[in-house]
Amino acid sequence: MVAVQDAMDILSGKWKIMIIGSLSFGKKRFMELIRDVTGIGAKMLSKELKDLEDNDLVKRTVYDTKPVTVEYELTEYGHTLKEVIGSIAQWGSEHRKRIFGK
Amino acid sequence: MVAVQDAMDILSGKWKIMIIGSLSFGKKRFMELIRDVTGIGAKMLSKELKDLEDNDLVKRTVYDTKPVTVEYELTEYGHTLKEVIGSIAQWGSEHRKRIFGK
Repeated sequence: MVAVQDAMDILSGKWKIMIIGSLSFGKKRFMELIRDVTGIGAKMLSKELKDLEDNDLVKRTVYDTKPVTVEYELTEYGHTLKEVIGSIAQWGSEHRKRIFGK
Repeated sequence: MVAVQDAMDILSGKWKIMIIGSLSFGKKRFMELIRDVTGIGAKMLSKELKDLEDNDLVKRTVYDTKPVTVEYELTEYGHTLKEVIGSIAQWGSEHRKRIFGK
């Protein structure tokens, strides 16, 4: 149980797993993440991204463009979560079939 | 992403995954769950168990003993989450090694 608890301390909350899910498809800008993670607000997304950066799961790159552009991507360590996200997504799609029959 | 979102709508919150993790080891009484899921309070546990029952993931059995005893167990459908919990636990133990080096 400790292992599940350790993981959930990092992943807890509704949004982190969805942000990681979105980034597992590739680099994203802030506004792309806001569109991809349905229902999240800008303030919450900033906080969750900061947590994920602190836990070395997400890397933030600032490009010196006008205006400045900021990109987020999974670190190598962040990519180790792909299997977890994959099994959650797998369960989610079977759950959808069971509930909605499609 | 919809699949991840569907799963997280059911599993969201810090406790549900840990409750399912605990029940994946077998039937538990309420007080056993309180001890197993470190940090959860009785009120929160009741609410989360009710959600899990509503989603047909947990079954509640009341035994006509004196005093009454109540047991919780994963439904057949609840057991389909074992793989998700397993991959979360796997990641959690590797995370622990990475952070604490043990």
